Amino acid sequence: MKSVLAYGDSLTWGYDPVALGRHAHEDRWTSVLQKALGHGVRVIAEGLNGRTTAYDDHLADAERNGVKLLPSVLESHKPLDLVIVMLGTNDMKRGVAGTAIAAVKGMERLVKLIRLHDWGFDFEAPEILVVSPPPICATANAPFAAMFKGAIEESAMLASLYRDMADDLGCGFFDAGSAAKTTPLDGIHLDAENTRAVGRAIEPVVRMMLGL
Amino acid sequence: MKSVLAYGDSLTWGYDPVALGRHAHEDRWTSVLQKALGHGVRVIAEGLNGRTTAYDDHLADAERNGVKLLPSVLESHKPLDLVIVMLGTNDMKRGVAGTAIAAVKGMERLVKLIRLHDWGFDFEAPEILVVSPPPICATANAPFAAMFKGAIEESAMLASLYRDMADDLGCGFFDAGSAAKTTPLDGIHLDAENTRAVGRAIEPVVRMMLGL
Amino acid sequence: MKSVLAYGDSLTWGYDPVALGRHAHEDRWTSVLQKALGHGVRVIAEGLNGRTTAYDDHLADAERNGVKLLPSVLESHKPLDLVIVMLGTNDMKRGVAGTAIAAVKGMERLVKLIRLHDWGFDFEAPEILVVSPPPICATANAPFAAMFKGAIEESAMLASLYRDMADDLGCGFFDAGSAAKTTPLDGIHLDAENTRAVGRAIEPVVRMMLGL
Amino acid sequence: MKSVLAYGDSLTWGYDPVALGRHAHEDRWTSVLQKALGHGVRVIAEGLNGRTTAYDDHLADAERNGVKLLPSVLESHKPLDLVIVMLGTNDMKRGVAGTAIAAVKGMERLVKLIRLHDWGFDFEAPEILVVSPPPICATANAPFAAMFKGAIEESAMLASLYRDMADDLGCGFFDAGSAAKTTPLDGIHLDAENTRAVGRAIEPVVRMMLGL
Amino acid sequence: MKSVLAYGDSLTWGYDPVALGRHAHEDRWTSVLQKALGHGVRVIAEGLNGRTTAYDDHLADAERNGVKLLPSVLESHKPLDLVIVMLGTNDMKRGVAGTAIAAVKGMERLVKLIRLHDWGFDFEAPEILVVSPPPICATANAPFAAMFKGAIEESAMLASLYRDMADDLGCGFFDAGSAAKTTPLDGIHLDAENTRAVGRAIEPVVRMMLGL
Amino acid sequence: MKSVLAYGDSLTWGYDPVALGRHAHEDRWTSVLQKALGHGVRVIAEGLNGRTTAYDDHLADAERNGVKLLPSVLESHKPLDLVIVMLGTNDMKRGVAGTAIAAVKGMERLVKLIRLHDWGFDFEAPEILVVSPPPICATANAPFAAMFKGAIEESAMLASLYRDMADDLGCGFFDAGSAAKTTPLDGIHLDAENTRAVGRAIEPVVRMMLGL
Repeated sequence: MKSVLAYGDSLTWGYDPVALGRHAHEDRWTSVLQKALGHGVRVIAEGLNGRTTAYDDHLADAERNGVKLLPSVLESHKPLDLVIVMLGTNDMKRGVAGTAIAAVKGMERLVKLIRLHDWGFDFEAPEILVVSPPPICATANAPFAAMFKGAIEESAMLASLYRDMADDLGCGFFDAGSAAKTTPLDGIHLDAENTRAVGRAIEPVVRMMLGL
Repeated sequence: MKSVLAYGDSLTWGYDPVALGRHAHEDRWTSVLQKALGHGVRVIAEGLNGRTTAYDDHLADAERNGVKLLPSVLESHKPLDLVIVMLGTNDMKRGVAGTAIAAVKGMERLVKLIRLHDWGFDFEAPEILVVSPPPICATANAPFAAMFKGAIEESAMLASLYRDMADDLGCGFFDAGSAAKTTPLDGIHLDAENTRAVGRAIEPVVRMMLGL
Repeated sequence: MKSVLAYGDSLTWGYDPVALGRHAHEDRWTSVLQKALGHGVRVIAEGLNGRTTAYDDHLADAERNGVKLLPSVLESHKPLDLVIVMLGTNDMKRGVAGTAIAAVKGMERLVKLIRLHDWGFDFEAPEILVVSPPPICATANAPFAAMFKGAIEESAMLASLYRDMADDLGCGFFDAGSAAKTTPLDGIHLDAENTRAVGRAIEPVVRMMLGL
Repeated sequence: MKSVLAYGDSLTWGYDPVALGRHAHEDRWTSVLQKALGHGVRVIAEGLNGRTTAYDDHLADAERNGVKLLPSVLESHKPLDLVIVMLGTNDMKRGVAGTAIAAVKGMERLVKLIRLHDWGFDFEAPEILVVSPPPICATANAPFAAMFKGAIEESAMLASLYRDMADDLGCGFFDAGSAAKTTPLDGIHLDAENTRAVGRAIEPVVRMMLGL
Repeated sequence: MKSVLAYGDSLTWGYDPVALGRHAHEDRWTSVLQKALGHGVRVIAEGLNGRTTAYDDHLADAERNGVKLLPSVLESHKPLDLVIVMLGTNDMKRGVAGTAIAAVKGMERLVKLIRLHDWGFDFEAPEILVVSPPPICATANAPFAAMFKGAIEESAMLASLYRDMADDLGCGFFDAGSAAKTTPLDGIHLDAENTRAVGRAIEPVVRMMLGL
Repeated sequence: MKSVLAYGDSLTWGYDPVALGRHAHEDRWTSVLQKALGHGVRVIAEGLNGRTTAYDDHLADAERNGVKLLPSVLESHKPLDLVIVMLGTNDMKRGVAGTAIAAVKGMERLVKLIRLHDWGFDFEAPEILVVSPPPICATANAPFAAMFKGAIEESAMLASLYRDMADDLGCGFFDAGSAAKTTPLDGIHLDAENTRAVGRAIEPVVRMMLGL
């Protein structure tokens, strides 16, 4: 039995930009991936709305800084064979960090946290798959447009920057933008079809990294 | 589809006091409960070694204070129909809080955090099932005996105190000590048979609370 | 007897931009309001220089993040009939958050904190009056101009954004810019006459919300 | 006009152990003191249920550590002529600190925080009056008896220890136990008559320290 | 025997932009200063890569906020005759604070922390020497250029702003840019020759402040 | 050139229980060790009054939790060949943790923090030498006796527990109680002769660990 942790934000939680709720369980990319991989692999979904890589955000009734939360999530689900980290969109909010380079730096810190975690019990550190979220698109939604002002240009650079960083650090890389598009309803989220598409497209990468 | 969150410590993570690792997935009480409830219910296991109800513990490579961690766990898995909280053993460590009354006070705070959480999206607050962990027993394991000095007497009072508190606050209550015994190997953990037993015994309580 | 809490920043504390000290007690808008409302209402002033809605600022010998401080202030003065929140100016400092939308998001979080506070004792949650501070104006004061670079444009949008947010969340709203003007001495503070004017102008709104 | 800050816990907030709510405004010791001192002095009451001198307590929906909260309270009400600190009862809870010496050490830290605060504006540091709360008495109230186990003996030493410490640090001292008795209903709180008595008895000490 | 604390960032730690490691001990400016001052003075080097004046940065495996770290550094090395603070470069990173004025405000806070520290033992507060780091220069290094976008202009103003602030607060001032130039290899660091030059040039200022 | 970090508390800072100040530089055990080792080794002293292994203590004008401070100290002085950790006395204060086992658990956490630190730059993790402080002795000093009530018995067990733990974790071990005795003036500190004795006695252990 292999264990895969998906550590993400609202794109992993399954925020539904159409119905303004949560996507049905079977539509979330983590569920599609679980189904595709079958019984030999367990996919553990940890998606938190608003999660950043490494930046504080006190606007919610929960900690949102990915660096502060990651160790307890790793502890709760260890031992792990693979950790998929799909984060970065919320870093590009104005007032959080606002840039793609900030997301890259935060992702690097998360990679190091996983590798240097005190796993205990002779558990080995898992492989890491860095995933760039689909690029932010233009939206007529005023609050989202204001929060993500300037982020369209930044997010267009993210996949390339993540790929280089993943190569440097010896991580896997997947560009979710190659499989899915964000909705113009708010500029950042995925409708049901697009979140399913991420699950389908990421499957072969996960299989390869797990040696399946 | 109903969603049940199990928020616990090493007894929920599945610490194996015999092999000094993690119980097989099918042996953990949350897996036994999932299997018994079938496809109409999803049981989400969040067990963290060393988790307390409301007390700091800086001895691990992770936050362990249950009050500080709960909001992000609720956010990650909402909407929820039921939250099962089985905590208190680690509160009774010397240097953490050391008493049963401290665990009761911490559990009350967790109940209030769940009820007053900013659920958003018109999600309703879930029902809450308070579970007292099986009483601590004597052990010849010197480090555990030292850490839990005085805790045997304290933990003997815990079920009764939790039951009264759960009644006062309108929560469900289950005494895991009615179904399982801790191992004398370390005085606090459950062997595979006893962790499975918790899953079997808690099932009817969960069914009733979910209206199944 | 009704209780009203005024939760604010230097505009509520009574920073005097002329004498560089604190306005006389009778000149602060909270005192003017207290006098106007008379003995049946108690106005509790909690103004903290530099307070933000939800953003960290480690430049002072005190916590300044309004989200982190609000719960203990509510606890100290409960039960309350009305909370007046006049914040946002400091959010628009460069290096804090720098935008009006950040202030709106922070104010939303404060509103939720009040509504979801664990009031205890059968105390009910108070009504909430959101107040937009008077718009920032141009100043020849170099340090203030540097700190608030770009904030004049942002603050010009604040009243409108707060009004919409208050309507959405069912809060009262008052635009302090309708009654008072900031001084060009530093661009953000109120002289004695203008702080008194806020107290006079807000009185009828407070009376209406208190049902007086 | 002189300003006096009363920094305390539930004894200052006015917890009513008979009606299980808050004492009427006119019954709280801070109100009695205000009335006795008249218009030339402003008494600012900052009482927070559960406040400790210097110890964390995560059991409430608010920060309770007096050291962490004091700077923002000083900032909110400066300039001040006198700070009255009546704390220590909650320090003696099991699981918080549990001893009188802990309260003394915490009180010393609060005194230093006041003296070394960055007052700004040429404001001078205020005088400090250390007040020992009335000694804890025996109670048949089981939860309170459990929480404060061992505290009766500790609290009996508190006045003497505070007096010595206040002398060493050049602070004023008042023993509230000389004027009031805690109720056997819970062992720690004051009924209306006893809280009024604190206000009457402390008046001459305050007058002397203010030079009135 | 006089004691001098050098509180700084990578420029004080001795980051070597050529070899991508740490400068040899004898090349660091603090060592050059120590040698020049001789046996009557002890120079204590506390340089931390990435240290800011007063801003959080969660990208490293260490706290980096200078305000949060300073008190324990002062405690560890007290009594002190002089504290040299050379910080500000990291404040000007995008996503940290991004401006020279932010560095000035942070430096002011550090100065106040030193003056208001609880020194104890009748130790006196030390003199303070504010040092502006050499201005940031253009670089072809893409990650550094991205992180410090806009910072060249900001850093050009820093020396003048620090000088005025130091004068206002009664601190000494030294412009390290008068003695050393940052390398175009990354735009912010000093090669061996330039870090040695800082030590030589600061010596007379330190001698004067120590009365030697 | 080898680098050795001494991470400790008041015994390393050099608290003088006779003169109530700091021991002369040449009397501190770290200085004696430096002199004995000569120019090929640099001994970096980081002693902080009141430092614990892993427990919060908000009674001072500085963070005192060794776990929270260690990463920035490691970063400031890396690369390192050896870290000497002499802590534990303050853990045994009542209200901090109060037991020897707590100090052992805290020391284990510190060892893991050193080994799993993100050293960067291809720097290797240093060797670790665990040092048990000399046992606490009886004192007529009332405040110290009250603070350390029960600690004499606990501290008598510490050397043996540390030795076992150091063996298990592959660290070096030195019992400072084999070379020095605490003074009855306060029960915990070392006079000048005894602090020098620690330096002389630890030298051969350090030489062996450094391969000198």
